[in-house]
Amino acid sequence: MSFELTILGCGSATPTSKQFPTAQLLKMQERFFLVDCGEGAQQQLRRSKAKFSRINHIFISHLHGDHFFGLPGLLSSFHLLNRSTPLHIYGPSNLKAWLDLTFGSTNTNLVYPLVFHETQNKEKALLFEDDKVEVFSFPLRHSIATTGFLFQEKPKERNILKSKIDEYNIEVCDIQNIKNGKDWIAANGKIIANTELTKDPTPPLSYAYCSDTSYLPKLNERIHKASLLYHESTFLDVDKKKAKQTKHSTALQAGKIATLTESENLMLGHYSVRYDDREAFKAEAQQEFINTFLARDLRRFTVSQDAIEFEDLNASKSEVDKL
Amino acid sequence: MSFELTILGCGSATPTSKQFPTAQLLKMQERFFLVDCGEGAQQQLRRSKAKFSRINHIFISHLHGDHFFGLPGLLSSFHLLNRSTPLHIYGPSNLKAWLDLTFGSTNTNLVYPLVFHETQNKEKALLFEDDKVEVFSFPLRHSIATTGFLFQEKPKERNILKSKIDEYNIEVCDIQNIKNGKDWIAANGKIIANTELTKDPTPPLSYAYCSDTSYLPKLNERIHKASLLYHESTFLDVDKKKAKQTKHSTALQAGKIATLTESENLMLGHYSVRYDDREAFKAEAQQEFINTFLARDLRRFTVSQDAIEFEDLNASKSEVDKL
Repeated sequence: MSFELTILGCGSATPTSKQFPTAQLLKMQERFFLVDCGEGAQQQLRRSKAKFSRINHIFISHLHGDHFFGLPGLLSSFHLLNRSTPLHIYGPSNLKAWLDLTFGSTNTNLVYPLVFHETQNKEKALLFEDDKVEVFSFPLRHSIATTGFLFQEKPKERNILKSKIDEYNIEVCDIQNIKNGKDWIAANGKIIANTELTKDPTPPLSYAYCSDTSYLPKLNERIHKASLLYHESTFLDVDKKKAKQTKHSTALQAGKIATLTESENLMLGHYSVRYDDREAFKAEAQQEFINTFLARDLRRFTVSQDAIEFEDLNASKSEVDKL
Repeated sequence: MSFELTILGCGSATPTSKQFPTAQLLKMQERFFLVDCGEGAQQQLRRSKAKFSRINHIFISHLHGDHFFGLPGLLSSFHLLNRSTPLHIYGPSNLKAWLDLTFGSTNTNLVYPLVFHETQNKEKALLFEDDKVEVFSFPLRHSIATTGFLFQEKPKERNILKSKIDEYNIEVCDIQNIKNGKDWIAANGKIIANTELTKDPTPPLSYAYCSDTSYLPKLNERIHKASLLYHESTFLDVDKKKAKQTKHSTALQAGKIATLTESENLMLGHYSVRYDDREAFKAEAQQEFINTFLARDLRRFTVSQDAIEFEDLNASKSEVDKL
């Protein structure tokens, strides 16, 4: 199994003609989660050919415009497209008042239910849970209340061995219990250990999202062995003072966090427009953490237990950002 | 002299990957006016290579998202770029409260003065005036309070004939009076008629913007002989009932308004995504008005007294919308 992460925008602060502000689409266990929603996110969703009507949950890390100014447009489009499925939005409390006024001002009564869930940035908190996936928020340290998000698969069922079903003539009604880890009692009363009947499931995958934040080593209390860690790297080490002042991070610091959290892979993004060369971000982070990748607009990552791959969607020669 | 109009977006309602919502940049007499500001306008401004720091006046026709959801992003970028020049915004009263809450929520104290001018849609009103240009609003008829805008050059000075300056030895101090249309009195007391000394100035140019609106024949009381009339054409005549219901217009109706207002040229836009063929809009309007042009994203029109021309910016083959 794998999850898919599509970068809709990886820029910071002021968008350019080639760089959209932050937005990401995560597909995990067939659930679609939108993580932040900078201006133009809905256009990028269309370019990525995502089935965006399947997004039922939107997570907003903080109320800086480059992370949420795309919400009114996207929510309006859902309205105009006659969406009926409830849409859940998770974000700071002020966001609700702003969305209410937005739709009040435009005289719009949304045709679908909008369910708002207020986040807090004091401690790790469960925001969403179903049978396969959990989503947590956790505090980051920025110039305004900001949370990161941790998306993780729930532990999976054990894989029952077909050969053992045949050998012991196990009935269908017992199989779920065995998948859940229980031993099995044969007709003759003999107890067959679960470990004989099953093999370990693939470990759950997880995606940790950290933007925007200053260097925060204690993130290792919130994130442990993420399959993929996204950590902002607005600056390079040469500008680490600027990073500290503005409560952002450098690529080197992002690499350190990947090491501290024992993550499998690191993705960088939220690059300041002051730098021309994005490879420099990668090289810098790799001084601390080798499995480092660069976010780019419309880059899609596929992450499984053993591998991480990416492809650039819409990568016609004339449109590829040379950076 | 001429004015320049750059179409940043010409779509309606739901943006697609190829069509931005409404925004236009008008350059008239070296003044830059932004007319509506749909989501993504700031990116399109960058793509058009406009000097967007020179925009000092933004006109918002009405509070439907596809006409103003790009404002927060653009205004934030001005802030981040340390703009100091005052920015004037003209729009419906609710817009101010929304912008205030937007920047309140994001904890942003804009570093430049934002001056809000409330529009009304009862009657024609002067919104802006300086020595060379006037801008008026006028009521349109839509599902929400909506105004059109009329940008017009002020009458220009008469052109003084150099040969006459020499012939009569006219002194510099008299020239401005003559340019203003006054007769001139020679040293011998003879009155020289202004018409002998000057020739007519080029007539003032004007641009009339009508979006969104249902068919409104009495627009001819507001607009007369516009050098260029932009009139929305969300629908084709085959869907005229739909146009009436939603208080939009058809291309045929736009052509009729161009005729009624005796405009020189007509530009269509605000196309519904339901149609594949934009040439059909042009053909339909031309049944009523021959000098019809199509708005397209990043198309720049240059309008003078005798001519209208356009070029498509950024028109690499892979990016040109085939529509």
